[in-house]
Amino acid sequence: MSLLVVGSIALDSLETPAGRRDEVLGGSASYFSAAASFLAPARVVAVVGDDFPAAHLQFLSARGVDLEGLVRRPGRTFRWKGRYEQDLNVALTLDTQLNVFAEFQPDLPAAYRDSEHVFLGNIDPELQLAVLDQVRRPRFVGCDTMNYWITSRRESLLRTLRRVDTLFVNDAEARQLAGEPNVVKAARAILGMGPRAVVVKRGEHGALFFAGDEAFASPAVPLASVTDPTGAGDTFAGGFMGYLAASGRLDLRAMRRAIVVGSVLASFTVEDFSLDRLRSLTPAEIRARYEQVRRLAQFDDLEAGVLRGSTGG
Amino acid sequence: MSLLVVGSIALDSLETPAGRRDEVLGGSASYFSAAASFLAPARVVAVVGDDFPAAHLQFLSARGVDLEGLVRRPGRTFRWKGRYEQDLNVALTLDTQLNVFAEFQPDLPAAYRDSEHVFLGNIDPELQLAVLDQVRRPRFVGCDTMNYWITSRRESLLRTLRRVDTLFVNDAEARQLAGEPNVVKAARAILGMGPRAVVVKRGEHGALFFAGDEAFASPAVPLASVTDPTGAGDTFAGGFMGYLAASGRLDLRAMRRAIVVGSVLASFTVEDFSLDRLRSLTPAEIRARYEQVRRLAQFDDLEAGVLRGSTGG
Repeated sequence: MSLLVVGSIALDSLETPAGRRDEVLGGSASYFSAAASFLAPARVVAVVGDDFPAAHLQFLSARGVDLEGLVRRPGRTFRWKGRYEQDLNVALTLDTQLNVFAEFQPDLPAAYRDSEHVFLGNIDPELQLAVLDQVRRPRFVGCDTMNYWITSRRESLLRTLRRVDTLFVNDAEARQLAGEPNVVKAARAILGMGPRAVVVKRGEHGALFFAGDEAFASPAVPLASVTDPTGAGDTFAGGFMGYLAASGRLDLRAMRRAIVVGSVLASFTVEDFSLDRLRSLTPAEIRARYEQVRRLAQFDDLEAGVLRGSTGG
Repeated sequence: MSLLVVGSIALDSLETPAGRRDEVLGGSASYFSAAASFLAPARVVAVVGDDFPAAHLQFLSARGVDLEGLVRRPGRTFRWKGRYEQDLNVALTLDTQLNVFAEFQPDLPAAYRDSEHVFLGNIDPELQLAVLDQVRRPRFVGCDTMNYWITSRRESLLRTLRRVDTLFVNDAEARQLAGEPNVVKAARAILGMGPRAVVVKRGEHGALFFAGDEAFASPAVPLASVTDPTGAGDTFAGGFMGYLAASGRLDLRAMRRAIVVGSVLASFTVEDFSLDRLRSLTPAEIRARYEQVRRLAQFDDLEAGVLRGSTGG
């Protein structure tokens, strides 16, 4: 059940309608590993600068996250500054400073090379391939990407996708990758590029899962307030892959549960800034919200005879 | 199980990415009654001009729709001309000719006054109230509305809502009516205006249902192609209310089924122009797609022990 994540660790400065925070913990590997830690501790491959606060590393370590693959380089940590306005689905990037992340070359510690579950966070697909080349025999590979790589690194991304089990994208990325405005057709086209399954994340509208002829629609938890949407997608992936690693299962019923676990964890993350909600989160709260989604999605079979038998003439 | 609908019967001219049609059958009462006819035949209160094709009336009659309350006036039938571009959620109105609909004053035939289930289609809320005043003792009142009435007839609409059991709105209308950008809070605010339940229709993202502390999320059927979104909302309402009338139940489990029946019928309507898909639709197809949505939404309880018991420190 070993779980590996490669991605970013960042200091985020955020403005949302609910307030602002400066230089708080962020990055795909942070959200992913903190979320996964409720199910399976993850091994992290990432880089930070020598300015990175030790308290953040202590937080992740205390949650069981394995930081042997975290490299500390001279220089400044990756910084992202973003703003959300009324439409919380759209992040406006105000500033990006790659800093030490610009020269990131993932190099797996020997102990990480037998990892069974591998999550390729949203980084250059060339680096995603470099990670896969260092893992002996992964059982399950999950992958995230974004519009920038889809347009500027398309060939590398397509090579990566041939080695991926499940791709995580949002609606717009699915449409862009497939060149197809209909999400269902786009998902099918992506399945033709290699992944066995694709998860289309739709924010407040939940998630869709496609694998072969199978489809699953998970509702999002209806939230009366969202404080900070940052990291929702990486939290989702961390919950999803953490569940698969913890359960040891990779069948379609497990995938459905994994999606709901991912949605549930993401619904907590967005309730506060940065990873703050995950700091106080308990397994009992996760289980209760999973049950809430069960009730939310539940309905009975249609009774016999309720449809009018003839065409009514 | 008597079911009454008041609304429009129109001749629509449509342009969508899939093609165009001129002067085809449209209007809320047409879609509603044709959809409901798969479950319960509806009584229609509406008006057409003396140019209205007899074939359309024959189609509805053949489906068991009761047209005693349909008035034919000298003059032209209501006409609507609309276009959908890449985003099929947005209808661009090119032309509206109210014609005989401008002077519409719903006058219920004596036999309609004992109707138990009443659907108030998207018309002036003053007319919706006039209809309710003519029904003796309705068991269940459903109501549709739109942005125009929310802004220009707000007081009348609020009076109507106090007499409504379930309001059908889309996201934008819910936000506008409540003056609240968050859909969950908006729905709760609307429940405070009178309705016992509110259905928020979200097109390709399915529907949300709120009643008291109860919430239900129905996924939309993932469709690989949509030909014409016109009438999806009225079809949804027709399926929803037709199901309640046919089942004779008004409890929350019945409401959940009703929402899925409505979604399923709407998913057929948008597969072809006008009401054309409903012409060939069979009860077996409806049942099969209901089962498809069951599979789409299904997932298991979370196993005991899969969440890490401690906080992982």
